[in-house]
Amino acid sequence: MSDDVSKTLAEFRVSIDNLDASLIYLLAERFHLTQQVGEFKKTHDLPPSDKSREAQQMSRLRQLAQESNLDPDFAERVIRFIIDEVVRNHERIRNSG
Amino acid sequence: MSDDVSKTLAEFRVSIDNLDASLIYLLAERFHLTQQVGEFKKTHDLPPSDKSREAQQMSRLRQLAQESNLDPDFAERVIRFIIDEVVRNHERIRNSG
Repeated sequence: MSDDVSKTLAEFRVSIDNLDASLIYLLAERFHLTQQVGEFKKTHDLPPSDKSREAQQMSRLRQLAQESNLDPDFAERVIRFIIDEVVRNHERIRNSG
Repeated sequence: MSDDVSKTLAEFRVSIDNLDASLIYLLAERFHLTQQVGEFKKTHDLPPSDKSREAQQMSRLRQLAQESNLDPDFAERVIRFIIDEVVRNHERIRNSG
């Protein structure tokens, strides 16, 4: 790899690393919040998941993905992955103590 | 559900929706950038994936997850999911035109 190519690739990677750090902090904040939702749902005896809410979320996020030029199917798979983890967390909270 | 419970849940959901919109735009920007990296790698005949770079990324992101109180295993699964999609994209770019 020439010095120029190596330098350009390193520059790209700095930006990717910055975006990834933002992504981690955003995910951390989302889980911090859904942890509170889980406790709140447990206190008020609400079910861990809400299919109609999830459908609304998904449809809005697919639209945002389209507007931001991100593949909506990929966006849906990522969000689905995250929501599934949250629901598992809510179930754990519900079944604890 | 009482009005109070319903109102509190709705407030939580506004915050979650805001975080999710940020998440989508961040993912869109990450893909916008990795798309350019894919083209750059193709031009300079570099391989679509770089295992040593990925290992460095993962180790740093696990540490950031720990600092932000996010489960590092979950963080790794999400990032792995995203990187796999990027590598598939790079392969598509490499094999195109």
